[in-house]
Amino acid sequence: MSERVFNFNPGPSTLPVEVLKQAAADVVEFNHCGMGVLEVSHRSPEFMAVAENTEALIRELMGVPDDYKVLFLQGGASSQFAMVPLNLVGPGKKATYLNTGTWAKKAIKEAKMIADVQVAYSSEETSFDHVPTVNDYQVDGDSEYLYLVSNNTIYGTQFPEFPGHPTLVADMSSDILSRTLDVSRFGIIFAGAQKNMGTAGVTVVIIRNDLINRAPENLPTMFRYKTHADKGSMFNTPPCFSIHVLGLTMRWLKERGGVAAMEATNRKKAAVLYQAIDATDFYRGHARNGSRSLMNVTFNLPTPELEARFIKEAAAVNLKGIKGHRSIGGCRASIYNAFPGEGIDRLVEFMAGFEKKHG
Amino acid sequence: MSERVFNFNPGPSTLPVEVLKQAAADVVEFNHCGMGVLEVSHRSPEFMAVAENTEALIRELMGVPDDYKVLFLQGGASSQFAMVPLNLVGPGKKATYLNTGTWAKKAIKEAKMIADVQVAYSSEETSFDHVPTVNDYQVDGDSEYLYLVSNNTIYGTQFPEFPGHPTLVADMSSDILSRTLDVSRFGIIFAGAQKNMGTAGVTVVIIRNDLINRAPENLPTMFRYKTHADKGSMFNTPPCFSIHVLGLTMRWLKERGGVAAMEATNRKKAAVLYQAIDATDFYRGHARNGSRSLMNVTFNLPTPELEARFIKEAAAVNLKGIKGHRSIGGCRASIYNAFPGEGIDRLVEFMAGFEKKHG
Repeated sequence: MSERVFNFNPGPSTLPVEVLKQAAADVVEFNHCGMGVLEVSHRSPEFMAVAENTEALIRELMGVPDDYKVLFLQGGASSQFAMVPLNLVGPGKKATYLNTGTWAKKAIKEAKMIADVQVAYSSEETSFDHVPTVNDYQVDGDSEYLYLVSNNTIYGTQFPEFPGHPTLVADMSSDILSRTLDVSRFGIIFAGAQKNMGTAGVTVVIIRNDLINRAPENLPTMFRYKTHADKGSMFNTPPCFSIHVLGLTMRWLKERGGVAAMEATNRKKAAVLYQAIDATDFYRGHARNGSRSLMNVTFNLPTPELEARFIKEAAAVNLKGIKGHRSIGGCRASIYNAFPGEGIDRLVEFMAGFEKKHG
Repeated sequence: MSERVFNFNPGPSTLPVEVLKQAAADVVEFNHCGMGVLEVSHRSPEFMAVAENTEALIRELMGVPDDYKVLFLQGGASSQFAMVPLNLVGPGKKATYLNTGTWAKKAIKEAKMIADVQVAYSSEETSFDHVPTVNDYQVDGDSEYLYLVSNNTIYGTQFPEFPGHPTLVADMSSDILSRTLDVSRFGIIFAGAQKNMGTAGVTVVIIRNDLINRAPENLPTMFRYKTHADKGSMFNTPPCFSIHVLGLTMRWLKERGGVAAMEATNRKKAAVLYQAIDATDFYRGHARNGSRSLMNVTFNLPTPELEARFIKEAAAVNLKGIKGHRSIGGCRASIYNAFPGEGIDRLVEFMAGFEKKHG
């Protein structure tokens, strides 16, 4: 077996080794039932327990109130970009969006096909280097919901706090479970699992009960929240293995002290890296102070050539996946819950050495 | 480790042990890259190779012509029930369906929300115990496509041959790759992977190029075939692990001689079981001769009480998952590609013993 690398990929991304080992064992045989977890029926007691325990752990870890459903859907966060307006608003009704990056823009594009869209704020002119504060924009009074992306993976920005709105909808794909949160302030929270919660193939949707049955009658069955809410996410065969890995990751998170403990570690990890960036002019952070993400740390070097060299040499010492998103270039270290602090120390050390050689 | 059982589940269902062991190893470490297959980026060379090889194997095994795309989508076959009419027809246009069971009915329900639907044939009155021949129905001339379910998992019926139509659409979720097929006779073939091809979470869609770009402009991005065709099924993060298991299963299938070899084995396996059913009045097959499925063998015992006892006693000797679908009761043995012939022999032996005791 090769040495395990430090995996800075933005998603799919690093997972706890304990989770991987358990998942691997379960693929061959699950719960002494003489079948692997890929082979058990989704209606079997074995798998029903997986789904129920996974939901219970998410409810416990996030403090999800009783009047919210937790759904396990397919299609990625990208499908939610359409499902949210399809279920919540109709033609002629309005929804408000904050445009803080690529994923917000994609969600806005989908919403515009379906409803009247107000873009109340955009940070596009400054390369999405910040998120707005509540004083920076106004939400139209007749808007059905306010939509934001809590953490912008590509640009490395994150909302440090959330605005108030009767129906706040948040794409939390890249920072769910990374910090404590009052779920009751949201109408819908959704997140693809492959960053902070497990592996690709399942999207967690936490939805307040009053929003579940607002879809028009002609909306196809699979695109309706009600379909999945009524059947405990078992209307059709769910992505069983992805749900199982999600559950194992939730168990790991709980054993490590839950979300508050995770947040403390995440703050420490990010602080070490930002400190290394701020201590020199050789490295420059992309995100403004006050908007910096705890999950994705984006930075530049003096030239694109040096950046390419940095990424290559880092990979050679097992610091992999540091290349920035193709749309903005530069470097990005994605340091989700499962990313070990040791990897940050190694990166900071490497950064100092690289600067000494090339600065 | 417990003894491996014979798993007659209808899906998720039994997989080759070789596939499970390789998948398990890959979860912990993939291709000596210092990460597990759940952790590699979907844009990494490692995963791109997985997706490309998987597609190439499907093309080779099924003889997919060059003017067809092979897509890996999420949402299950149930999402295709809506995607097919959403992409192929608009309001006022017509589509024709053959109603041969629960899954056909669900597809009809979705199509009716979207288009003008002709149900050209239904076997509902006789408990879906057969499929029609081409002489049993007429397709309206102005119909954009003819839709059928090639194998009806719940009722144990299967089309022995296919009608001709310029745009034949087939849900092959439960018999894809189980018998040789002329793909060029179809407009769209789709199948959830969790029966004959791998694990839940990915749906394979084989679509003729001229059908890809017929969707109306306001159809959400994720629901358009073109979105996924243009990006090689990588518009957003795909269900990576499910695609990997699909690829491993395709490799296994190729090593076993491909689809023709699989068909020969499947015919032999089914014949043994139907012979055991036909040899006595104690067991009665549900499907009519001429419509019998090679994949799902449905049968009844003299009373529901005996059926319940049969299922329980079979499970006690490691013949599991024989209970019929809750909508029709009785017994069902699902014997997909990966189900071993030895399991059929064991079941037939058990059936004889059970009859001797209770007949």
